[in-house]
Amino acid sequence: MTDRLRIAVLGASGYTGADLVRLALTHPRMEIVALAANAKAGQTMAQIWPHFAPYPQLPALVKAEAIDFTGLDAVFGCLPHAASAELLSTITGPQSGPRIVDLSADFRLKDADTYAAWYGGAHPAPALLPEAVYGLTEFARDALPAARLVACPGCYPTAVLLALLPLVAAHAVSAGNITVNALSGVSGAGRSLKEANLFGEVAEAVHPYGIGHHRHMPEMEQELGLRAGREVRISFTPHLIPMNRGELVTCIVETAHGTDYLREVLADAYAAEPFVHLLPAGVAPATRMVRGSNHVVINVFADRIPGRAIVIAAIDNLVKGSSGQAIQNFNLMFGLPETLGLEQAPLFP
Amino acid sequence: MTDRLRIAVLGASGYTGADLVRLALTHPRMEIVALAANAKAGQTMAQIWPHFAPYPQLPALVKAEAIDFTGLDAVFGCLPHAASAELLSTITGPQSGPRIVDLSADFRLKDADTYAAWYGGAHPAPALLPEAVYGLTEFARDALPAARLVACPGCYPTAVLLALLPLVAAHAVSAGNITVNALSGVSGAGRSLKEANLFGEVAEAVHPYGIGHHRHMPEMEQELGLRAGREVRISFTPHLIPMNRGELVTCIVETAHGTDYLREVLADAYAAEPFVHLLPAGVAPATRMVRGSNHVVINVFADRIPGRAIVIAAIDNLVKGSSGQAIQNFNLMFGLPETLGLEQAPLFP
Amino acid sequence: MTDRLRIAVLGASGYTGADLVRLALTHPRMEIVALAANAKAGQTMAQIWPHFAPYPQLPALVKAEAIDFTGLDAVFGCLPHAASAELLSTITGPQSGPRIVDLSADFRLKDADTYAAWYGGAHPAPALLPEAVYGLTEFARDALPAARLVACPGCYPTAVLLALLPLVAAHAVSAGNITVNALSGVSGAGRSLKEANLFGEVAEAVHPYGIGHHRHMPEMEQELGLRAGREVRISFTPHLIPMNRGELVTCIVETAHGTDYLREVLADAYAAEPFVHLLPAGVAPATRMVRGSNHVVINVFADRIPGRAIVIAAIDNLVKGSSGQAIQNFNLMFGLPETLGLEQAPLFP
Amino acid sequence: MTDRLRIAVLGASGYTGADLVRLALTHPRMEIVALAANAKAGQTMAQIWPHFAPYPQLPALVKAEAIDFTGLDAVFGCLPHAASAELLSTITGPQSGPRIVDLSADFRLKDADTYAAWYGGAHPAPALLPEAVYGLTEFARDALPAARLVACPGCYPTAVLLALLPLVAAHAVSAGNITVNALSGVSGAGRSLKEANLFGEVAEAVHPYGIGHHRHMPEMEQELGLRAGREVRISFTPHLIPMNRGELVTCIVETAHGTDYLREVLADAYAAEPFVHLLPAGVAPATRMVRGSNHVVINVFADRIPGRAIVIAAIDNLVKGSSGQAIQNFNLMFGLPETLGLEQAPLFP
Repeated sequence: MTDRLRIAVLGASGYTGADLVRLALTHPRMEIVALAANAKAGQTMAQIWPHFAPYPQLPALVKAEAIDFTGLDAVFGCLPHAASAELLSTITGPQSGPRIVDLSADFRLKDADTYAAWYGGAHPAPALLPEAVYGLTEFARDALPAARLVACPGCYPTAVLLALLPLVAAHAVSAGNITVNALSGVSGAGRSLKEANLFGEVAEAVHPYGIGHHRHMPEMEQELGLRAGREVRISFTPHLIPMNRGELVTCIVETAHGTDYLREVLADAYAAEPFVHLLPAGVAPATRMVRGSNHVVINVFADRIPGRAIVIAAIDNLVKGSSGQAIQNFNLMFGLPETLGLEQAPLFP
Repeated sequence: MTDRLRIAVLGASGYTGADLVRLALTHPRMEIVALAANAKAGQTMAQIWPHFAPYPQLPALVKAEAIDFTGLDAVFGCLPHAASAELLSTITGPQSGPRIVDLSADFRLKDADTYAAWYGGAHPAPALLPEAVYGLTEFARDALPAARLVACPGCYPTAVLLALLPLVAAHAVSAGNITVNALSGVSGAGRSLKEANLFGEVAEAVHPYGIGHHRHMPEMEQELGLRAGREVRISFTPHLIPMNRGELVTCIVETAHGTDYLREVLADAYAAEPFVHLLPAGVAPATRMVRGSNHVVINVFADRIPGRAIVIAAIDNLVKGSSGQAIQNFNLMFGLPETLGLEQAPLFP
Repeated sequence: MTDRLRIAVLGASGYTGADLVRLALTHPRMEIVALAANAKAGQTMAQIWPHFAPYPQLPALVKAEAIDFTGLDAVFGCLPHAASAELLSTITGPQSGPRIVDLSADFRLKDADTYAAWYGGAHPAPALLPEAVYGLTEFARDALPAARLVACPGCYPTAVLLALLPLVAAHAVSAGNITVNALSGVSGAGRSLKEANLFGEVAEAVHPYGIGHHRHMPEMEQELGLRAGREVRISFTPHLIPMNRGELVTCIVETAHGTDYLREVLADAYAAEPFVHLLPAGVAPATRMVRGSNHVVINVFADRIPGRAIVIAAIDNLVKGSSGQAIQNFNLMFGLPETLGLEQAPLFP
Repeated sequence: MTDRLRIAVLGASGYTGADLVRLALTHPRMEIVALAANAKAGQTMAQIWPHFAPYPQLPALVKAEAIDFTGLDAVFGCLPHAASAELLSTITGPQSGPRIVDLSADFRLKDADTYAAWYGGAHPAPALLPEAVYGLTEFARDALPAARLVACPGCYPTAVLLALLPLVAAHAVSAGNITVNALSGVSGAGRSLKEANLFGEVAEAVHPYGIGHHRHMPEMEQELGLRAGREVRISFTPHLIPMNRGELVTCIVETAHGTDYLREVLADAYAAEPFVHLLPAGVAPATRMVRGSNHVVINVFADRIPGRAIVIAAIDNLVKGSSGQAIQNFNLMFGLPETLGLEQAPLFP
């Protein structure tokens, strides 16, 4: 395994950590050296995850402090916010230590005050913020090869930004008055023992949550604002629907253009992308088009209200919305082919 | 059974017909005299519906033409559009024949041209349109006692109009720029043999449909326009989610008022309603609050974009959105207590 | 409400307690006087249960000790085993206090040693065991009118015993070598915060549990043994499947008779039963035939191995398997019509 | 692509065909040359399958007769029974033409009369039966390298035989009185437009089917009988449960041995297998351990009835139960590493 890059996953007891391990298992250039999960240290992945039952050979879980980070090439952070920055700030330095791919929210916002306002506490490592690269891969290719700390976008921002950034950048739609309704499978809520995550609550049911105050809002506003060159406010209402994986965002935007033009802008932007697909005119994006894969599907529709358009995107929240994009970033950080280890097609049915 | 009103259900082989029969079975003032379903005539309800296996005593299905409509008190039409108007126009007259509760789309739109434009053909019985009462019960109580033909609203319009009509009528929100994102269980698509309705397509998946051209749009615009005193255009994007029953609408509206005021308007409007419930401040409507019942839950939230609010409502699309509301209308048409036969509480989990 | 019987529900924060309240809400002869749930005392039912959002008028939850049991007609115990017997033994006496309908396992087994062996501790109130009536309603009608303490059967025993008791009693099948494979929705596991109950674990998945040692075994063996007049051992393997409600048991039995004869025995046994239905020959029982109702569907099929037959039954585990049967027992205890408050038809889809 | 083997898939419009294409897409030694589906000829895979939306480059569907089979290395038959044998018999010869991997039932049974009795018609190509290799890979390794026609086992037989064959071969369990209860996701029923496959029928529901006469019975009996050296009859009751993928079989067997010994026999049999995993003692097999992968998990439990044991296995019915095993066979037929293209880990949640 001498040509493999040595990696560790922190937080391997959560869904994003587990999905990263799932993909890393068959990545031809990764060697999983260590898996950490403080509360489950001492157990094997097969003991805490059903789908790793066939993989008893995976490293057992340890406490993060038991890992020797020297000699690692990369560390994937799959920890809750705050905990992530606290730990990662101890293992990385400007030119030393493993390179970091963080899947938490800690390094996504460029402004520590905004972070404090939305995440309920001072940022644990504000000194690292300037060097963090916002890892929406398709828009971060220049920065990734040299990046030492990459902040992977949240799942909702991934879908919304891929749908809207080229349109906003081309001034094809207004950066104001963007209304996003979002639908997510329950894996987005993690594997935590909350009543809201029980099968009995989720199955055969739907409800909105985080109405008007979901933490992915400032992240979307930051990135849209950077493209628009002005402050942006978006309306964002996520809903929990009874499925495991998948996320679909329906964005209503103001535009002076027809859907053909908006589709052209997106077609140009994504013509060479391996994972982002503009669907044929009239075909509605669906999460079953991308389940279990790193793909994204997007399309544009006319709204009944003149001067508006509807842009819709679908992703797998755990793959392109999280662990898959993390590996996509990793590939570019280390000069590997962008699709390496991410080739598998969606699983249907 | 001498004190029972004699009813027939046309289209008892569809979901709305079946749910009507389910409720009629235990309605203390209804006697099910005849059940029609042309393609399944000769079979029993127990043969075509699993949940009627315990009810072999139900009348067998017949062709509609085999029914003697004289002597019936009421006929419930659960047929597809066009077919409904064609058949119903033959059995009702200005002062004779059974009273009609139609669950199809045929008598909802007051304008035959609008009907033709949206439903793809000339209206089969335009002469009946003037006398049809739009049966959104809470707003139709004056007209129902004398009505001979009641058009039950579509499922989406039921939810959207209950959420918005009092606000529009009070000029608390603008009638323009209303954006509705809607989520529906698959029973809204009926029991038809379409690939899109297969378990394999629906489970673990979500997608939008009818984007920009769903047939419930003109109905919502008609009723909102009547209250607003002006023409109204709404943006409406429905999505199919993996559940059987339930519908949730998320309406973004423009308003000069705060959520407290909007909640007050709704609280006043629905204070005495047995089925419409404004939830406590901050509680998100969820379809599991109403599953299998005639209840509606509504709430109002602040939007992140100033000058806007989010009004959300949830119903069971087959009950309040269809068969339950039909019976609620029937009760008022015949001077019965409004809640008769509709008392059952939601089923959870 | 002077003609209503005054009831309390202990354990109203669990699924069985909640389903009892759901049914009691519309029972014409019940008045819900008190609802207890120690850990949630002080909250309303609407706060802890989505489907009671439309019922703010329900009594708020209190601690059980806060209830004045004098003056109550009946108490429904929906507590975990051991806790149930401990509490109920303090509120009932031979001729005084409210009559008890217990839904826990505490009074099902007639032998305290068997209880201790299977439930992991001495029985908290062995003195009450002799007077407890095993409330499988269809086989307990003689004892119920005078009963002061009724032990409602477990959900699996309800389905298995209704399928097999008439056959065993008629010596139509052997009481030995009974093999039961059972399938249950996740509501059977309660609303507890266990990883195994999360949507992510349950959806799109199935697994067996309690293999060879499920606590419903001794209860089935006790009742089958009483009919057979000999000790009985059964093989019982339950599986958790991704649905909320419903239970289906597939029983392989040895028999010297053909399926026609076995069907005759069951037809005779259940000819006058309002809730137990032998399906037409060849029709497979399905949980969707009974969802949300107190109905039971049963049928018999030939096995490919000669000398054996397959008897299959389906119930809603929370209704006939729990709260519905409790109310059915209550009705008979108090001389009411057996079906009172239990008339509602299954909910499909 | 010169080092790639050229393949065609017949029946690419069905679930097994589509899953084969899904896996073939990333198989490093396969080139998909042609895809056939008569009824959908002229359409693209992206048009008929959601998950191929990101793969517009796949060959469009053609009629089978339009394929030039010369020059192909292998043909995968994913057609319905009878149709499969009819077509395949025209394209293969003793020493010429592409090698065939058939996923239909047509070449599984060695006896044409048995085929006729169970499949309702004379075998279309009985002359090919003698050369067909029954492709339960783990037990067919000797025959596969030279095989020109491989019959992949049915999904249920795959799970049942992997659970029982080593035990029967070692005389550790009796070959008689085997009782199998089986649970399958709905993808096993195919993508056909039948009412039974609708979401509304399947979700929140379970029912048995094919009771006493499922077509996978003779196949299991044939293979078990070959190992046992005697005629075998098994009892087999499959149930349809509300999930897409996955199959779990619960086999009750008679044995003179304890579970430890049975586990030893299986541990020895599968010690070197890449896809078959005996779980640690006491761990229940679950379909979520294998979803989307070619893995199999098995375990043995004590039954409460003495002299019996419970052997349980879980597979993904479309992968190891169908397309994955087909590729596993293909790999061995062509001298490739057995796991090539099948490495991906299960998808959870």
